[in-house]
Amino acid sequence: MQFQSSDIKAMDPRHRAAFMNSVSGFKSANLVGTVNAKGQTNLAIMSSAVHLGSSPPLLALIIRPSSDDHQTLANILDSGCYSLNHVTSSIVEQGHQTAARYPEDLSEFDATGLSPVWHAGFGAPMVAEAGIKLGLSLREHHELAINGTNLVIGEVVLADLPAGCMAEDGALDLVSAGTVALSGLDTYCQAVTFKRMAYAKTHLPPEVLWDASAQ
Amino acid sequence: MQFQSSDIKAMDPRHRAAFMNSVSGFKSANLVGTVNAKGQTNLAIMSSAVHLGSSPPLLALIIRPSSDDHQTLANILDSGCYSLNHVTSSIVEQGHQTAARYPEDLSEFDATGLSPVWHAGFGAPMVAEAGIKLGLSLREHHELAINGTNLVIGEVVLADLPAGCMAEDGALDLVSAGTVALSGLDTYCQAVTFKRMAYAKTHLPPEVLWDASAQ
Repeated sequence: MQFQSSDIKAMDPRHRAAFMNSVSGFKSANLVGTVNAKGQTNLAIMSSAVHLGSSPPLLALIIRPSSDDHQTLANILDSGCYSLNHVTSSIVEQGHQTAARYPEDLSEFDATGLSPVWHAGFGAPMVAEAGIKLGLSLREHHELAINGTNLVIGEVVLADLPAGCMAEDGALDLVSAGTVALSGLDTYCQAVTFKRMAYAKTHLPPEVLWDASAQ
Repeated sequence: MQFQSSDIKAMDPRHRAAFMNSVSGFKSANLVGTVNAKGQTNLAIMSSAVHLGSSPPLLALIIRPSSDDHQTLANILDSGCYSLNHVTSSIVEQGHQTAARYPEDLSEFDATGLSPVWHAGFGAPMVAEAGIKLGLSLREHHELAINGTNLVIGEVVLADLPAGCMAEDGALDLVSAGTVALSGLDTYCQAVTFKRMAYAKTHLPPEVLWDASAQ
């Protein structure tokens, strides 16, 4: 089934949004925790976190210019910090509900029953019930002229990990941490490890380090 | 298990790279197909595709300044187009192998045995064996001063989808399309749909549209 540029542009806007939110593949599902100067907390689900580099340890986040995500962006720019909290299977319903357009004076923590956790020396709330939890310090913000979205670059300054989820090589076992993957706008998936591959080298064929079918 | 900023900075560089490539959650696994002015094709696996907007239909890609990904970036900037091809379970080994540092005059298509497919009117090769295949036209390129990575913004101008993977609402069924999710640098996962949620509304509790445990 093929779609040309004209077909994509001719799609109904909601249909195109569902399509475009699916085409890149599986996405992360993170709850972004922030607070404003009055102490009002905010929690928003986002699927746009992306690795930018490890030295310094940077992640980027795309924040849409919608009214709903505007509060998160304003809080990040004002406070200089934010948390990323992995949605796990047990909090899919509450996590998804943070996408509802609650009024600014109602915290999504209160609306959904998720619990804020504060770490000493870090100014944004994390989510107690989440799996892997990160604290980020704002490093750069760019508004992208092409469509008004915001590129927010943060440094990971705090990581709170479930016991036993870090392997010897530093990688995290997202499956054991309960992290879910997001397909499109609304479909939450559990992951099953299929194959772990060795570092690819030109003079060697692909080497499978772990294979689900061999277990 | 908690890590402060100083702990993260003190990690061995390879350990920190494995950690940082895991912390954002599950990632997409796409093969990026390009060609240079001499007709030399290139194929590189990347996990940084992210949704930027649906009108116009834009995806962003972070391209690292490494020597290996430099050819992909040069080809995109020169030709103005590139393809994104979903890695599926059946091509995990070949897809991962494109990360090896092959010399510039050797195409990863030839090195891995994956097959280029050309679509009329689109100037970059797609991967025949991949699942969902997209053609993108370059719209913007920004080098990010903070660490020299490149933000490449492209418009989806072509989509070639496996039969039956688009739902009525426009969303793609990534599970049925065979798309895998990536954890960290080397762990490929298959996804199982867990819950599909209704559009979140403030005056209604979370509504589960489909639940694996109820099947």
